[in-house]
Amino acid sequence: MEPIPILGGTGALGYGLALRWARAGIPLVIGSREAGRAEEAAGRVAAAVEGAEVEGYENGEAAARGPVVFLTVPFRAQSETLNNLREHLREDQILVDCTVPLAAAVSGKATRTLGVWQGSAAQQAQEMVPDGVTVVSALHSVGAPMLADLDHEMDEDVLVCGDRKADKARVAELIAAIPGLRPVNAGALETARIVEQLTPLLISINVRHKAHAGIRITGLPNGSDW
Amino acid sequence: MEPIPILGGTGALGYGLALRWARAGIPLVIGSREAGRAEEAAGRVAAAVEGAEVEGYENGEAAARGPVVFLTVPFRAQSETLNNLREHLREDQILVDCTVPLAAAVSGKATRTLGVWQGSAAQQAQEMVPDGVTVVSALHSVGAPMLADLDHEMDEDVLVCGDRKADKARVAELIAAIPGLRPVNAGALETARIVEQLTPLLISINVRHKAHAGIRITGLPNGSDW
Repeated sequence: MEPIPILGGTGALGYGLALRWARAGIPLVIGSREAGRAEEAAGRVAAAVEGAEVEGYENGEAAARGPVVFLTVPFRAQSETLNNLREHLREDQILVDCTVPLAAAVSGKATRTLGVWQGSAAQQAQEMVPDGVTVVSALHSVGAPMLADLDHEMDEDVLVCGDRKADKARVAELIAAIPGLRPVNAGALETARIVEQLTPLLISINVRHKAHAGIRITGLPNGSDW
Repeated sequence: MEPIPILGGTGALGYGLALRWARAGIPLVIGSREAGRAEEAAGRVAAAVEGAEVEGYENGEAAARGPVVFLTVPFRAQSETLNNLREHLREDQILVDCTVPLAAAVSGKATRTLGVWQGSAAQQAQEMVPDGVTVVSALHSVGAPMLADLDHEMDEDVLVCGDRKADKARVAELIAAIPGLRPVNAGALETARIVEQLTPLLISINVRHKAHAGIRITGLPNGSDW
């Protein structure tokens, strides 16, 4: 099985995903701006999950090591990271953008977002990746602290946006490998401009209910249509 | 018990709500631009639900008849309706705005929205109502066809936004009177700019899954914090 590169895998969301996938027996490559920090995070995953197959590399090297690359850096670092990846991403790779343009990126509120010229962080990513790389948008609404707590049973949906069904289906398979997460096809990549807003919405709800809220879509037939 | 005025109650969402509240034993006033159409819709509700207490009036007259007024007109008609209501809404009334600025209002797609200068349709409503009237935003994500099908058991959340807890709690009580709907405090009125986007998101999901999707928030403690 080819490993999953997680760029920004030293951050809260990336690290939580790494733990969950490691436990599901999926090999991982953690990427970070600094190779040393990536190796350190990989060591923590290996210590937390018995038998974990995990390595750490600088983001560019990490990105080259698997066909479906997850980008979990904060919005503040998204453009810079994508610029640095231009030489590393190859045709037919899928970049899964998990970025949320929270206003917190410019010292604003986490219950508000910034307007992104292209419509969404995911569409910005699509503009920046090399030709032939497709962007899928997902995993914005899953709480990092809950992912990182392996005793917590996940029980929520993950909305997936993208312009190619086959690519969304591939990403969906990886998401479904984490017990308790159900991927749901939410539409074209442009729909990311709505889905990215679910994070500040859930933060607003969390503040009011002292909760770790997630999203469920009701009324769907069994078996997703990809 | 004071009746609930539903302005635009001849439309799909308003009519669905009317049926559900009538069945819950709550008296209603249906408002429409034309009194005759409102009376006709009231007659249909009375025919569908035994013992329904329902009357029909022109919107302005309807609005004066209860303390919590629901505005369920399409976005295209929101501003005009609110202009016409200036002489009719009184201090301390609550206006529950259910409007969604779908691009369909200007012959665009129902999976896209228009940018509203004030940030959301609800904030536009708050700017237009007379002083002392507060706006609460709710009920965007509930499917009108499901509401109108009294054999369908509702099973979803309704996100409620507003700047005054007491007003949200009052609206929440009315929403909770419909079996299967759970009101959830989603934050300040400004959060409506996210919540209003759930409608095009669900439309996008419905198209792909041939479903009537709704929203659930997971991970909330029992008992809502208003």
